[in-house]
Amino acid sequence: MNVATIGTGWITEQFVDAVRESGKWTFAGAYSRSAEKADKLGGPRVFTDLNELAANKEIDVVYIASPNALHFEQALLFMKNKKHIICEKPMFSTTKELEEAFKVADENGVFLFEAFRNLYTPNHARLKEAIEKVGPVRHSFFQFIKYSSRYDNVLAGEEPNVFSPAFSGGALVDLGVYPISVAVSLFGKPKSISCHVMMLPTGVDGSGSVVLDYGDHTCTAMYSKITDSHLPGEIGGEEGTILIDHIAPITSIEFKNRRTGEKEQYAVREEENDMIYEAKVIAEIIESNDQEKYQYFRNVSEIVMQITEEARKQSGIVFDVEK
Amino acid sequence: MNVATIGTGWITEQFVDAVRESGKWTFAGAYSRSAEKADKLGGPRVFTDLNELAANKEIDVVYIASPNALHFEQALLFMKNKKHIICEKPMFSTTKELEEAFKVADENGVFLFEAFRNLYTPNHARLKEAIEKVGPVRHSFFQFIKYSSRYDNVLAGEEPNVFSPAFSGGALVDLGVYPISVAVSLFGKPKSISCHVMMLPTGVDGSGSVVLDYGDHTCTAMYSKITDSHLPGEIGGEEGTILIDHIAPITSIEFKNRRTGEKEQYAVREEENDMIYEAKVIAEIIESNDQEKYQYFRNVSEIVMQITEEARKQSGIVFDVEK
Repeated sequence: MNVATIGTGWITEQFVDAVRESGKWTFAGAYSRSAEKADKLGGPRVFTDLNELAANKEIDVVYIASPNALHFEQALLFMKNKKHIICEKPMFSTTKELEEAFKVADENGVFLFEAFRNLYTPNHARLKEAIEKVGPVRHSFFQFIKYSSRYDNVLAGEEPNVFSPAFSGGALVDLGVYPISVAVSLFGKPKSISCHVMMLPTGVDGSGSVVLDYGDHTCTAMYSKITDSHLPGEIGGEEGTILIDHIAPITSIEFKNRRTGEKEQYAVREEENDMIYEAKVIAEIIESNDQEKYQYFRNVSEIVMQITEEARKQSGIVFDVEK
Repeated sequence: MNVATIGTGWITEQFVDAVRESGKWTFAGAYSRSAEKADKLGGPRVFTDLNELAANKEIDVVYIASPNALHFEQALLFMKNKKHIICEKPMFSTTKELEEAFKVADENGVFLFEAFRNLYTPNHARLKEAIEKVGPVRHSFFQFIKYSSRYDNVLAGEEPNVFSPAFSGGALVDLGVYPISVAVSLFGKPKSISCHVMMLPTGVDGSGSVVLDYGDHTCTAMYSKITDSHLPGEIGGEEGTILIDHIAPITSIEFKNRRTGEKEQYAVREEENDMIYEAKVIAEIIESNDQEKYQYFRNVSEIVMQITEEARKQSGIVFDVEK
């Protein structure tokens, strides 16, 4: 299958490398408003017109890494032209957009994937195995906290895309979705949530906490784009505890048995570019029309979006697309 | 000043050692319903009648470490007999009790202290100094998570005091108050809070999360008596991050400068029995009638109680004393 890309940031470069290394797909071309920028990705073709790309019969899959607020319109255009979509997180701005997009995907017989790179990796699968060891889970904690140099622009009175409600930005949807998606992938849909954030003058959040209440267990997701962190992640069960060094990528998964004190390492060594797994897994699902696996990832996207929408509602974050 | 104790658990033994080593106070006697148990604490006198202890003119300070639900009545009895009180956490069951008790303390010209041992230590003071380095605080995280062997009794269908609403028990008030008291001591009263818990069949919580919303910063407090944890604590500011190994006791306070990457250790070596600091600080406040310091600790107790009461309300934990 032939893959084209939208967007020319570092994430697209990494995805193109992953496509090349996956052995599954062919990188067939890049779109950008700037032909020069698109050409730098090294593909055989450059597109500067989205409709031309949409009409191109040779392209089977489109990877979208444009600004968040553009994802919806672009995804719909390509899906209506029978192309499968891999869209960077956060895939869409609202549950309304998400539901509409999956409907269009179904109507056109194409797949729509959210690029939660951290959910396709071997170590995410290993983490699921390790959880079997801890007994009933009673607490868990995941964070994605990383200072963004764009915050310097906010402090200077500017409104960069990633911190702008006009571009559906903010720390919750940009980084918060990592810990939230891990929780949803491991534990499913929470019964209720609570969200508290630090609001920036731009109208979106700079940092915050979302507590996911599973009834028999409480999961805390912390995120921030205006601080740094050295906190590991943890899953605590009645029989033992799993400590993970980070959630994206995971390089250590240490299970400690509460009764014996014995430790066991579950992590395996992964490729440095973990988007290779994303590319491979998605290629396999499309090739084999694996509806069960597809539903799993689709379900995670749907629940994560419901959570972030509710979290934004609780904390007063309104995107321009909602106004 | 002469100090007497109520209760004969390990915490009382440690307090008696602290009194002896503090060089400030004299251990003058112990109360227990069992004379034999009280005698084991090694004091010069044994009391088996609370009223006799209350009437004893030689006792200046009473340390209360009885079951939580008995604190209020006992504290009132002794304060009305002009004795200062150091009461184990959680000091009382409700804000109503707490307000009444401080009123009685004022009326009788005595001091009433909650034994948050973790707030009187040199490293708590060092942590406050270190915070000056991080710039505006934007995230913080503290936990007290420790499996209690009493949970084995709960699993066996029993209702041990520490997990019983009849004794004002549960993980929130037993362990949750550690991270919450640290947050309140460092950051003051939050604007709002959210609490989610795992409820036990006994009617109190086994684990949970409380998010303290400070408007410009979100603090997450996690606690559990039914799991173990290896998570450190953290305070994240725009200029750097402080990682602490634990909150009670703190043995490492590492500040990392975001811009330079430089690390600085703030912790000092403390006495193994950190109740010595509690005994010394409280003795000094009473001796010098230091109203400013007293108000500080009183304020922390009041805010922590408001938080735990609101947290219990949100999560449906009702103590028998409230029914």
